[in-house]
Amino acid sequence: MKMYDLIEKKKRGTELTPEEIQWFVRGVTDESIPDEQITAFLMAVYFKGLTEAETFELTFAMRDSGDVMDLSAVKGVCVDKHSTGGVGDKVSLVLLPILASCGLPVVKMSGRGLGHTGGTIDKLESISGFRTDLSEDEFIDIVNRCGGAICGANKSLAPADKRLYALRDSTATVDEISLIASSIMSKKLAAGADAIVLDVTTGDGAFMKDADDARKLASLMVRIGKSAGKDICAYITDMDEPLGFYIGNSLEVYESILALCGKGPEDLMRVVSVLGGAMLRFGGICATANEGEKMISESVTSGKALDKFKEIITAQGGDPACVSDPEILVKAPVVVDVVSEKEGYVSRLLASQAGHAVKCLGGGRDKKEDIIDPLVGVQLFKKIGDHVSLGEALARIYASDEAQAALAADEIKEAYEFSDKSVIRHDVIIDYVED
Amino acid sequence: MKMYDLIEKKKRGTELTPEEIQWFVRGVTDESIPDEQITAFLMAVYFKGLTEAETFELTFAMRDSGDVMDLSAVKGVCVDKHSTGGVGDKVSLVLLPILASCGLPVVKMSGRGLGHTGGTIDKLESISGFRTDLSEDEFIDIVNRCGGAICGANKSLAPADKRLYALRDSTATVDEISLIASSIMSKKLAAGADAIVLDVTTGDGAFMKDADDARKLASLMVRIGKSAGKDICAYITDMDEPLGFYIGNSLEVYESILALCGKGPEDLMRVVSVLGGAMLRFGGICATANEGEKMISESVTSGKALDKFKEIITAQGGDPACVSDPEILVKAPVVVDVVSEKEGYVSRLLASQAGHAVKCLGGGRDKKEDIIDPLVGVQLFKKIGDHVSLGEALARIYASDEAQAALAADEIKEAYEFSDKSVIRHDVIIDYVED
Repeated sequence: MKMYDLIEKKKRGTELTPEEIQWFVRGVTDESIPDEQITAFLMAVYFKGLTEAETFELTFAMRDSGDVMDLSAVKGVCVDKHSTGGVGDKVSLVLLPILASCGLPVVKMSGRGLGHTGGTIDKLESISGFRTDLSEDEFIDIVNRCGGAICGANKSLAPADKRLYALRDSTATVDEISLIASSIMSKKLAAGADAIVLDVTTGDGAFMKDADDARKLASLMVRIGKSAGKDICAYITDMDEPLGFYIGNSLEVYESILALCGKGPEDLMRVVSVLGGAMLRFGGICATANEGEKMISESVTSGKALDKFKEIITAQGGDPACVSDPEILVKAPVVVDVVSEKEGYVSRLLASQAGHAVKCLGGGRDKKEDIIDPLVGVQLFKKIGDHVSLGEALARIYASDEAQAALAADEIKEAYEFSDKSVIRHDVIIDYVED
Repeated sequence: MKMYDLIEKKKRGTELTPEEIQWFVRGVTDESIPDEQITAFLMAVYFKGLTEAETFELTFAMRDSGDVMDLSAVKGVCVDKHSTGGVGDKVSLVLLPILASCGLPVVKMSGRGLGHTGGTIDKLESISGFRTDLSEDEFIDIVNRCGGAICGANKSLAPADKRLYALRDSTATVDEISLIASSIMSKKLAAGADAIVLDVTTGDGAFMKDADDARKLASLMVRIGKSAGKDICAYITDMDEPLGFYIGNSLEVYESILALCGKGPEDLMRVVSVLGGAMLRFGGICATANEGEKMISESVTSGKALDKFKEIITAQGGDPACVSDPEILVKAPVVVDVVSEKEGYVSRLLASQAGHAVKCLGGGRDKKEDIIDPLVGVQLFKKIGDHVSLGEALARIYASDEAQAALAADEIKEAYEFSDKSVIRHDVIIDYVED
């Protein structure tokens, strides 16, 4: 087989055979196919798409390009969760102790933030001592002892996807639905869970700006998962404004602890409840998602989830002091309030711009190698639908110095739009996709 | 500027600015843009095309990426000729001495063969001692002394095109008209002639299979040339069957000498006459192309062209003995005739397959680095329209051994198609394009 012929075939819109796709993924993995042929192929895929059969084959071949986690040593049904990313999205953080306290083993591999979106691993590392570089044995041991653990993505999972993603990222072919779906699902399938709940975000702060595109992506991922024999479903959730009130690494851990204390913001708790309910049902912990939602609520009100968080933090080498005294997580040296110059109802609050402000403060990355400041971030006082008076505080900036605080304040100010008329907030759960 | 943004822009079909295209070509030339971004961009161009303004800018930027030949030391108007390639195409070889003998300075840079198509440089090198690696000074000196010279493409001309072409060649983006036009024209403009006559071949053995595509390519190249201030026109010529009766390097020199002796095949002489006439007119040697065609005919019948060929061969270090005794060029060790198994009129004679047969004999290249055997090739006895009896010889194979001869004979047999009814041969000149 020759890569030239595969490029030519895809360029003409002809479906590749399973053997051709397997050969391609082997060549990507062993580096026998050079970068310049891969990127030309990916651009042809951008224009011609992949058929469903091609997408399935690509996903499975990428899954099999490295290790596939063996979770048979974990007691119980392993249910994984994946979000396509957002701003202020601390759902995984809150779900980890809740689900573990409900008896569902949480075996969670997470990523780091990039661009305007945050990553769960970065957030957890703002807890003093917390280790996310667990070996597979340590990881499974903590899951079996505490009911849950979270660690960084294993480098040996889906190496073909890693190479393809890096090339897509530098050549503007990230935004093609079959490539997105196969990339996400190859990693999720390699992570070895029995069931998967997907959170496909949509809106300004999400990768999928358009809800219909999000539905297409969700549906394709669900079909891939089912064809791999997994229990799987997806929720389309709103990421037009940030989730919750806090953005920034330690600030999001702070808000997660508030949430575990029963003081979580409504939008965050709605996503936690719906996704968590579905995960508990897939895990056989309850019969219906509704029942699962009740269990989640009880886990919080009873204090069990908070205790479980302490336990997991300790097991992963972290200092659990922040759970009893979350204020220690809020300690940026410079704190500046952003005051409204307008009066009215908040009609928009651009998540991408808020995320960008936090990145500019040093709380996010442009490139994978960038080092982040865990303390900086933004606290939003006003969200969509809220009334704001002239001179009232819109948000609070947590910065390392005054100059950066002033720049971030300007960005946050521009993230807001106002209306004279009252504005209705929509449900953060937009849709449910199960095929 | 970032290459990522240029890829994204082209992907969305937005026109790039002149500054962006100049920046791109600089980055291609100085290698600051990596291969994988260039090939993704080229594939986006394949799908979205380049506007006329983009194509012009790309051509001029590639022309200026290296040296532009200064032909001011050449006496007279320099007229260049370019063919988009074919099988049995020895037009440049025949025109070189004819035009020089008519007083038009011929400053010709030519290429080598690749795939099923031949190259003028390879053909000339089958003349014992003939040097094609002339320095610029030697080159111009021979032109001024003998009226014409031919040499290999100067490596310092259009280096951006060289890198882009190699990447297109490995990633299936050669067949896009704006890229083809800018590639050819950047080199032609860098070669420094005052006027250019283009031979855009079409049909099975040509790059442009379809005559309408050939017309589009010709028209675009003519417009590029005019916008660079050149006198330029194009002929669309038929390359469905090979040109002339001989294919293979020394065999084509042999047929060229026959042509200079007044015994050239009709189709070859028609192209020589029409293209040469246009070149003489551009060079101010005659007032009309018709007048030029008469001068060409006289140059052959008078023997001036043949004498000029001897003179140029000698000036370029070659042994002119072959001009007086062309049979010394026909000396392959194995000669086998291909006998017809059918009776009828030749309705097709696939040039690509005939070219492929010669490549398999060792007379062509798969890769640039391949070494060729100048002696091998094919002599066609029958061409489109000819009647063939059962058992009559269709062609003669000139090979280095029996096994290769047998394989080539099978290929040649398959290149022929027959009809019971008589078949009309069409004029090899299909169209003329001047804007």
